[in-house]
Amino acid sequence: MGTEEQGYFTEESSTEVVTSRNAGAKSARLKEVMEVVTRKLHEAVKELEPTQEEWMDAILFLTRTGHMCNEWRQEFILLSDVLGVSMLVDAINNRKPSGASESTVLGPFHVADAPELPLGANICLDQKGEDMVIGGRILDIEGRPIENAVLDVWQANDEGFYDVQQQGIQPDFNLRGIFRTGSDGYYWFRAVKPKYYPIPDDGPVGQLLAALGRHPYRPAHLHYIIKADGFETLTTHIFDPDDPYIHSDAVFGVKESLLAEFRLMDDPAQAKDLGFDGKFWKVEHDFVLAPAR
Amino acid sequence: MGTEEQGYFTEESSTEVVTSRNAGAKSARLKEVMEVVTRKLHEAVKELEPTQEEWMDAILFLTRTGHMCNEWRQEFILLSDVLGVSMLVDAINNRKPSGASESTVLGPFHVADAPELPLGANICLDQKGEDMVIGGRILDIEGRPIENAVLDVWQANDEGFYDVQQQGIQPDFNLRGIFRTGSDGYYWFRAVKPKYYPIPDDGPVGQLLAALGRHPYRPAHLHYIIKADGFETLTTHIFDPDDPYIHSDAVFGVKESLLAEFRLMDDPAQAKDLGFDGKFWKVEHDFVLAPAR
Ligand SMILES: [Cu+2]
Ligand SMILES: [Fe+3]
Ligand SMILES: [Fe+3]
Repeated sequence: MGTEEQGYFTEESSTEVVTSRNAGAKSARLKEVMEVVTRKLHEAVKELEPTQEEWMDAILFLTRTGHMCNEWRQEFILLSDVLGVSMLVDAINNRKPSGASESTVLGPFHVADAPELPLGANICLDQKGEDMVIGGRILDIEGRPIENAVLDVWQANDEGFYDVQQQGIQPDFNLRGIFRTGSDGYYWFRAVKPKYYPIPDDGPVGQLLAALGRHPYRPAHLHYIIKADGFETLTTHIFDPDDPYIHSDAVFGVKESLLAEFRLMDDPAQAKDLGFDGKFWKVEHDFVLAPAR
Repeated sequence: MGTEEQGYFTEESSTEVVTSRNAGAKSARLKEVMEVVTRKLHEAVKELEPTQEEWMDAILFLTRTGHMCNEWRQEFILLSDVLGVSMLVDAINNRKPSGASESTVLGPFHVADAPELPLGANICLDQKGEDMVIGGRILDIEGRPIENAVLDVWQANDEGFYDVQQQGIQPDFNLRGIFRTGSDGYYWFRAVKPKYYPIPDDGPVGQLLAALGRHPYRPAHLHYIIKADGFETLTTHIFDPDDPYIHSDAVFGVKESLLAEFRLMDDPAQAKDLGFDGKFWKVEHDFVLAPAR
């Protein structure tokens, strides 16, 4: 009997029998991962005592989830999202010092090569939706403005669709842009008010949500990736606190500190300055970057 | 804020925030399953603290595993097998009273409609391999013979292949048969000595085994499903204790009580009686059925 062999399988010894086989693993990290994954899986099975039929249901659910994945659709990431696992991995990897802005999930709709635009540019290229102006400062943890911070912003339109979901309907790079702060750390741009949208729910994950009595919606938000030399890159959103789904984001992305204020402005002079026609939304939100580690 | 809403996601509250969303689940069992699955997943993530790259590696592993599944190949069952989860589910669903024979996994090679054969029939239809005679009694827990017990047996050939893996090479129903005991509870049949074989290892699960320094082999065995009125159906194997992989079955199917003795017989008179040419293997193994619950 080799050193990797710890006797035969029993209900009691199951985890040890299985993980002891991994003595010759090529990577210490993989060995550690499989030790924890095996132990937690066996704990779950021992707690739930699934029937053979239930276990097969789980196998077939995972199989359908895999078959749903293609170049455009990642159903296992959706599954991770709706179980709060993506947010947990994000939280673990982005613990911030007190006072720094919090992160949230990247999401699937970022594109790498959005155009860099002058401050104040309107990222809405099709004049569709309710006008909105967004601005604020990028600060360090002592409240000092950060010059040359680069903001990569993207958002859904007034119907809850990103440009990449509506190629040929929305202009390319609609509601996306890259902005750079001046010496006052200030950023601002014009856009339209985004709308809540569903995560793709025509697959196994959508069926699971329905069976759990859960809806598939994410509350309206704007995405940001903010980079500056000497600081940790911040991947985050800001959310509309008046959104109907603000307390029940399907992917658990909302954090208290990410709630912005969306004020409806009835100010003809300011509207005229901004090139807007009538009422518009105004959002002011500062971001605080943590120092690079 | 609805009753299903337990505040925003934090690292600390992650499990409660996610599972509280399932208040309206359509099935109490599904709700319980998702409560345990979510909790164990979050525990695993908190213990391992995966990087974003490691988490994506896990997503992509599951995706490849799903894509490997087709009508003939169930890679998620293989994954469950090599992590000992299939055996654990089997063990939980087949706890036997003391003295009863133990179960093990069914495996993927059972076929439903094997022919019923007279006791003593030779299930080897192609005269390939080393002759073997197998016999024993089907008993109740008090040691009394069970009449009319039905044994469904199947095995790999001398090269480790089942007939269904070699259609056109092996005859249909090679090394399969259904036998029925008489009033003495005795069964016997003739066959050939089976060989160890690998589980399918050309997919993601095989790659995982290799990375863990594990081989894909199952030690030589015969499969049995034994049914009798008034008794629990027993799905099990018997194993050759001299097999090189007997202590390291890739799917953890071996139990102490499932080891049979494979004796090499040099007995020309008995060989002649059995219609064998020279030396042959002899296996004697009784099975004890638990009363129906
Ligand atoms: Cu509420
Ligand atoms: Fe989004
Ligand atoms: Fe087998």
